[in-house]
Amino acid sequence: MKSRNLTLLLDLYELTMANGFFEEVPEKKGYFDLYFRKIPDKGGLVIYAGLAQVIQYLNELQFSDSDIEYLRKMETFSPAFLEYLSNFKFECDVWSVEEGTPVFPNEPLITVRGPLVQAQLLETMLLNIVNHESLIATKARRICMVARGRSVMEFGSRRAQGADAATYGARAAVIGGCSGTANVLSAKLFGLKPLGTMAHSWIQSFSTEREAFLAWMKIYPHNCLLLVDTYDVLNSGVPNAIKIFEQLKKEELYSNIGIRIDSGDITYLTKRARKMLDEAGFKNATITVSNALDEDVIQNVLEEGASIDSFGVGEKLITASSDPVLSGVYKLVATQEDNKIIPKIKLSNTVEKTTIPGFKNLYRLYDKEGEVQGDLLSLYAEKIRGNSRIFNSDPNKTQQKKKMHGLVLKPLLVQIFKQGRLVYKQPKTMEIQETSSQKIGKLPAACLRLKNPDIYDVYWTHQLKELRAKMIDEFSD
Amino acid sequence: MKSRNLTLLLDLYELTMANGFFEEVPEKKGYFDLYFRKIPDKGGLVIYAGLAQVIQYLNELQFSDSDIEYLRKMETFSPAFLEYLSNFKFECDVWSVEEGTPVFPNEPLITVRGPLVQAQLLETMLLNIVNHESLIATKARRICMVARGRSVMEFGSRRAQGADAATYGARAAVIGGCSGTANVLSAKLFGLKPLGTMAHSWIQSFSTEREAFLAWMKIYPHNCLLLVDTYDVLNSGVPNAIKIFEQLKKEELYSNIGIRIDSGDITYLTKRARKMLDEAGFKNATITVSNALDEDVIQNVLEEGASIDSFGVGEKLITASSDPVLSGVYKLVATQEDNKIIPKIKLSNTVEKTTIPGFKNLYRLYDKEGEVQGDLLSLYAEKIRGNSRIFNSDPNKTQQKKKMHGLVLKPLLVQIFKQGRLVYKQPKTMEIQETSSQKIGKLPAACLRLKNPDIYDVYWTHQLKELRAKMIDEFSD
Repeated sequence: MKSRNLTLLLDLYELTMANGFFEEVPEKKGYFDLYFRKIPDKGGLVIYAGLAQVIQYLNELQFSDSDIEYLRKMETFSPAFLEYLSNFKFECDVWSVEEGTPVFPNEPLITVRGPLVQAQLLETMLLNIVNHESLIATKARRICMVARGRSVMEFGSRRAQGADAATYGARAAVIGGCSGTANVLSAKLFGLKPLGTMAHSWIQSFSTEREAFLAWMKIYPHNCLLLVDTYDVLNSGVPNAIKIFEQLKKEELYSNIGIRIDSGDITYLTKRARKMLDEAGFKNATITVSNALDEDVIQNVLEEGASIDSFGVGEKLITASSDPVLSGVYKLVATQEDNKIIPKIKLSNTVEKTTIPGFKNLYRLYDKEGEVQGDLLSLYAEKIRGNSRIFNSDPNKTQQKKKMHGLVLKPLLVQIFKQGRLVYKQPKTMEIQETSSQKIGKLPAACLRLKNPDIYDVYWTHQLKELRAKMIDEFSD
Repeated sequence: MKSRNLTLLLDLYELTMANGFFEEVPEKKGYFDLYFRKIPDKGGLVIYAGLAQVIQYLNELQFSDSDIEYLRKMETFSPAFLEYLSNFKFECDVWSVEEGTPVFPNEPLITVRGPLVQAQLLETMLLNIVNHESLIATKARRICMVARGRSVMEFGSRRAQGADAATYGARAAVIGGCSGTANVLSAKLFGLKPLGTMAHSWIQSFSTEREAFLAWMKIYPHNCLLLVDTYDVLNSGVPNAIKIFEQLKKEELYSNIGIRIDSGDITYLTKRARKMLDEAGFKNATITVSNALDEDVIQNVLEEGASIDSFGVGEKLITASSDPVLSGVYKLVATQEDNKIIPKIKLSNTVEKTTIPGFKNLYRLYDKEGEVQGDLLSLYAEKIRGNSRIFNSDPNKTQQKKKMHGLVLKPLLVQIFKQGRLVYKQPKTMEIQETSSQKIGKLPAACLRLKNPDIYDVYWTHQLKELRAKMIDEFSD
């Protein structure tokens, strides 16, 4: 997508605060963690996505003259601050988990370290991007899991919440496992497979269905996928399609043939259509369905014995309609002056909503067979050794301790920006899909379940656990 | 927003069909209606929004060299068609309802007339824009209705589904009645009121809450809205805020003072905070709340007697999370060759899903007092007279006939593009908010109810009713 200026896409309070930091504590640094607390659809994991767009946003951060002029007219900001913004140079350090990685509640997905006046300004866009793309990748993964190897195609642009939701949503859906998208822009931008054939309007614009099919066959003999439900699937659409396939066969032209059904009782219609196609000698003709599908419907029709080769999934994927928000947050976890890191906490009535203080690191724990045993959150500077005791962070499993003995740590946070300079080599979207599947394959099967998954084990080091307990204690006095 | 190329944001099948139309029926024109069938949240009306972005999209339609090159590499399209696209000149006629208008199921919100090869290409983006913005405007209207005159502020950018969802969603929220938005970009682009003060990170980055408040007061004495729930609302936040207000009062500095509460039991906390502020002599201090609000929560806390001046509404508004899809469709309703209009229909198992054929017009019916009596759908060329009989389109009210006698018709569809040229003068977003409220005020009160609203009366002319019945009959033979 042609670059555009999203620098002002922030909440006003980030600017009023930044102005305040600039006036009061211009040298002070902050550490912010981006994380979520709850997995959508009561699922077992979230697929992290959006880093590529975060990088693009940070690379392009720049206040235009017209932005500065707009801010000046608000009569809220000091001239010196506006001058600073107009010469804005991004100086932060940024660490992030890699895209496609399965992640879990309260894990820092992004950590930003930098002048408070800068790090504060990133809040809205970092959250907007990561919340959106991770939500859709996660939903796509759920849908692809129940499709059991059948192709799932992203067809939702028309119902997406705006152009970006369509374009980046399609990208996220592919990261989550979709085989391609109908959105041509997204396919072009991210090297995805563009997919689709005809709508009802093609059929309607000819006098008869047969005439419309014939015209199509003439133009696309090698990719003849016919929409068969404009008038009557079994009495008109499929018989007419079969006649076309016979003609293609006679002319030795056909390679890719199939039908698409977009309405009605999917199980019944696909079973009958399959039988008709097979009996006519077209076992190779594929059947695609595409009507208000999600993981529940797909699971049901497959259990009922529907005969389907691929699914076109629209609004329920592209909006994650069953639970359309990933509630990621971006919280100050430490400040720094003169190289001294001071952990910060935000209290809350509930333990889960109280933040996890400090500049931290995050590891995935593998056993000797390479199977994942959980994650580990530590303070950044800590050395983890084989005899380190670690503690389950789940309040329902607080008694569960473990020793690190025999476990292999793999750090999940990778440095992306070093003092404002990009130091990360980005993989292609299709590579992310591939590595994501591999990473998911190493997880305990019980956390992959769509309904009532096991809660994945996230551990804390002793030092982190003690720091948080102490800080909660101090504030409760 | 800086212009960007969204021309390829379409579903692949629109291009394969357009290529087909170009090859087979290059001269044939089509009429497409954009409409929806179901109102989200089982509400009584939808607030139409998005026309401004539709206009921008149509004005900027242009295939770049790199777009054409991408399409060429797909080896799907004829060279002549690609040549046509590279010289694409928009030639369609476009009619639309005006933004902010309350609209109802099956009413054409946009009608496009033009070469099939062009009109087909617009499907995805027109739907994407209108489905998204109308959804959010409709949700905002629901929320503003229960807020009963209190200010509702759009605070959801961080949870929106992408940057466009944040930016255009904020615009739509204001059309639906919100007083402003935290999104500075949206405020700048559309002349909205930018709103917001501080986050918890401001408080946390100082040693104490009091110190943070003092620093804030120093910078923003005239607009001192303090976030009071970082540690403890009633024992720390409000008492500290009162001390600040007292100091401002002593220095004769304050004009705009208030507190914001972002967690906890809203009813209890706002009642107590109000009492504390009043007793300290700060009846003018406003109370804003902002925690996971929607129309249900707002209605409940107001009924419980919460003391609130304004609401900051986030994720539940910006994603319309309770029902996050407006399922608008874009359907061929007629074709035209040699000036002859041929109505088209798409059948379905259910009467509601069968399309309404023909090039149509849409009117709002007013009685002599200026109160709205329903809408009327006719064929475009029809003359409506006082003795014209009209028929309720609701299948449950099919016996309900009416005479036009005494009713005044106001056409709802306005021409926007004439053979590709913009002929519509666009109102400002805040003007749309204003006229929208006026239009809603003329509707029957019973269709405004949030729960179990009355179904608004949409009538058809005799001629339209007969045409559809005849076409259904013909196809059923």
